[in-house]
Amino acid sequence: MDNQTKKAAWIAVDWGTTNLRVWMMGRDNVPFEQAHSDKGMGGLARDEFEPALTELIAPYLADDQVTPVICAGMVGAREGWREANYIATPCPPPGRTAAVKVEAQDPRISVTILPGIKQITPPDVMRGEETQIAGILREYPNFDGIICLPGTHTKWVHISAGEIVSFQTFMTGEMFALLSEQSVLRHSVTSDDWDQQSYLTAISDAMTRPQSVTAHLFGLRAGGLVGELAAETARARLSGLLIGIELAAARPYWLGQNVAIIGAGVVAELYRSALVEQGVPAAVRDVADLTLTGLTAAYTAQEGASE
Amino acid sequence: MDNQTKKAAWIAVDWGTTNLRVWMMGRDNVPFEQAHSDKGMGGLARDEFEPALTELIAPYLADDQVTPVICAGMVGAREGWREANYIATPCPPPGRTAAVKVEAQDPRISVTILPGIKQITPPDVMRGEETQIAGILREYPNFDGIICLPGTHTKWVHISAGEIVSFQTFMTGEMFALLSEQSVLRHSVTSDDWDQQSYLTAISDAMTRPQSVTAHLFGLRAGGLVGELAAETARARLSGLLIGIELAAARPYWLGQNVAIIGAGVVAELYRSALVEQGVPAAVRDVADLTLTGLTAAYTAQEGASE
Repeated sequence: MDNQTKKAAWIAVDWGTTNLRVWMMGRDNVPFEQAHSDKGMGGLARDEFEPALTELIAPYLADDQVTPVICAGMVGAREGWREANYIATPCPPPGRTAAVKVEAQDPRISVTILPGIKQITPPDVMRGEETQIAGILREYPNFDGIICLPGTHTKWVHISAGEIVSFQTFMTGEMFALLSEQSVLRHSVTSDDWDQQSYLTAISDAMTRPQSVTAHLFGLRAGGLVGELAAETARARLSGLLIGIELAAARPYWLGQNVAIIGAGVVAELYRSALVEQGVPAAVRDVADLTLTGLTAAYTAQEGASE
Repeated sequence: MDNQTKKAAWIAVDWGTTNLRVWMMGRDNVPFEQAHSDKGMGGLARDEFEPALTELIAPYLADDQVTPVICAGMVGAREGWREANYIATPCPPPGRTAAVKVEAQDPRISVTILPGIKQITPPDVMRGEETQIAGILREYPNFDGIICLPGTHTKWVHISAGEIVSFQTFMTGEMFALLSEQSVLRHSVTSDDWDQQSYLTAISDAMTRPQSVTAHLFGLRAGGLVGELAAETARARLSGLLIGIELAAARPYWLGQNVAIIGAGVVAELYRSALVEQGVPAAVRDVADLTLTGLTAAYTAQEGASE
């Protein structure tokens, strides 16, 4: 059966903390097969990375040649398969020649890991987002402006002349998760409904008086005890207060700028609607296939120069 | 042996979420014995409260009379022994006549629970702190100014003419715990040392530009990855950023005011040193015995009027 399976020209790997996704690529740089598992970097010891990869890609490896495997994401962190050190801003998203080679046991693969990007002042790091940015730049080589990547750690990135000029990370998503699931507020903000008007009012409150965010938080609990604050309103206000203070701090990034949001559905829409209220018509680009586009950009950018 | 044990004139009870403390009081309102257990309100079902109390106080109960037992704290929450509804500001700390009677099985005790205090606008609640405030007012009946009670949920309370006029709660302690123990920052802020100068600089940063707090947080992680930010510096900065944004929001409470801090050692000192930098010479009063003083105030304030 193995001999009948189509073999990959190269393999693209998105290896995050909790997930592993691979694409089997043809000579035309189009994937003809994909696979995934939950063997993210967070749960693997160093000697478990190669088996986790092999179990997904083995059928697509030719015995008579070496197949390039190019990886992005937390697999390159210090606790990952092998550390791929950060490159410093300003810089273009890293291509294959910047990747670090991993010594694999299987002679049929040549594995490399793309580095993350660091900024010295103010100190900041990214690992994985640079590949999504590479995807945007492959689609829009002349993009000049701001890319916002909402998530657990939202990033605002200034792109100019094909380079990542500067960026800033906010822990907004992680703060929302901690406060809504583990703090005293968990009793007050659990709801599947959503109050968009309260969300936008909270954005405005936070941007006008950022220090008031910390004063308003406990009120989300007390409002339900002494008044009639509904859970969907409290949840929307919590989200609005946290994203609002982020927008206040990130103002130099978005004010008067060309902003693109790379994200998934609900969270991306939260940022989009908040920016619209500030007069910034940000476009949303779905994150799903940008990583593959970015991995392809990294692979092909240096294709002629490598083996 | 039981007949030889001195009997209590009344019993004072501080019953919080995680701890239960009782004092056996003489007719002179001085405790002659005390006891405690870890049977806090958080771990008890409704029918487990009375046994938890009785196992500490039984030897001190007379068989031929009814001993008053007066309780303060989370024991009066909705999930407690019996809900003692909040009274609304402005109001003095509640005395015994405002307490709610609990139907105890043991005929030798008459148990009452002091209510908490609520504020309708902006919505806020306290339960337990009002008894510490009663302790301050028993010692200084003419106190007029601000009481700051640092803790998991820090409270700023405006006291005038023996009444709680208004108050504001900040989740600063809970935020510090969540961020330092459960967020990505846990890798970067674990230290037993302390960098007081960085703490004060972060206070100043946060007060000058409150929105920058959210921008600085991830930098505490990144600063250790791309630079040489030490853990004790990162820990002090995290604390300073969070207390600083609280001070920015609480400015109407403390600016130009007479401020007393009720708290325990380290945290009280953090608030004190930050306020000194703002030109506010706050006095620190140890919290330990104020609850008993407040319970005594609540008991004696209405002593003549009750049974």
